Amino acid sequence: MTEKPVDILLVEDNPSDVELSLYALRKNRIVNQIQVARDGVDALDYLFCTGQFTDRHIENTPRVIFLDLKLPRVDGMEVLRRVKSDERTRSIPVVVLTSSREERDLSRCYRLGVNSYIVKPIDFEKFTEVVNRLGVYWLSLNELPVDMVSSGEE
Amino acid sequence: MTEKPVDILLVEDNPSDVELSLYALRKNRIVNQIQVARDGVDALDYLFCTGQFTDRHIENTPRVIFLDLKLPRVDGMEVLRRVKSDERTRSIPVVVLTSSREERDLSRCYRLGVNSYIVKPIDFEKFTEVVNRLGVYWLSLNELPVDMVSSGEE
Repeated sequence: MTEKPVDILLVEDNPSDVELSLYALRKNRIVNQIQVARDGVDALDYLFCTGQFTDRHIENTPRVIFLDLKLPRVDGMEVLRRVKSDERTRSIPVVVLTSSREERDLSRCYRLGVNSYIVKPIDFEKFTEVVNRLGVYWLSLNELPVDMVSSGEE
Repeated sequence: MTEKPVDILLVEDNPSDVELSLYALRKNRIVNQIQVARDGVDALDYLFCTGQFTDRHIENTPRVIFLDLKLPRVDGMEVLRRVKSDERTRSIPVVVLTSSREERDLSRCYRLGVNSYIVKPIDFEKFTEVVNRLGVYWLSLNELPVDMVSSGEE
């Protein structure tokens, strides 16, 4: 089974935030492949090749994860903890993209090793602009080890 | 002794790269206070309040560290390792800003918990543009826990 390399794993349960993010990211020609996970279980299944993703290979990591915190079933904090505590996934940049500005969430995310923490702007236009800038930063400016970037290629 | 809160700790030994970075960062009105360390020992002294910085308080962390890898005395990788292995400093975002695209450096930085890894463009104008974008991203878009941001204020 051929696996396309994924640029971004977007973990978000709010349908309109998903739609807006996809719109903002696809305006950048640098973003090709986006995988959407609607809750923490889906995100972990995708990343660790379990559930519906047993045919995937764990080395085929996304280039960046954009992670909401408030998610059904398993929350974003637990997804972050699992990603950063596993040797196979801890190098994947994780950007928390959340409406929470709570001190407890911020401190805990940094302690768990989040790469960046972004508060979602409430305004529609500002939200798309921020997501666009995130795409540019993490896909065209930030560098990853070659074995991560090319691992999805056949 | 009053300590001004530092926005950026710039760890760079090349005088022209320091000059260009300061120029690029000061164009942003969001950057107020930049501390420059010319080698790894100076950077560690600043961060851990040793040597010439014994009067500082370790809680007064910079909001972001821009870190070169090839440095005299103690290299950037060791600075990164020390920052990320100490509970008091590990939440500080560290952006490696280096001319090295070597796989070994990239992998090791990510394993040590670097927040972002940027390769310095060789071209003068592109370099200033990248540093400017880094300043905007890490100081105006990225959020930090309040206890880090406000710790330097009296």
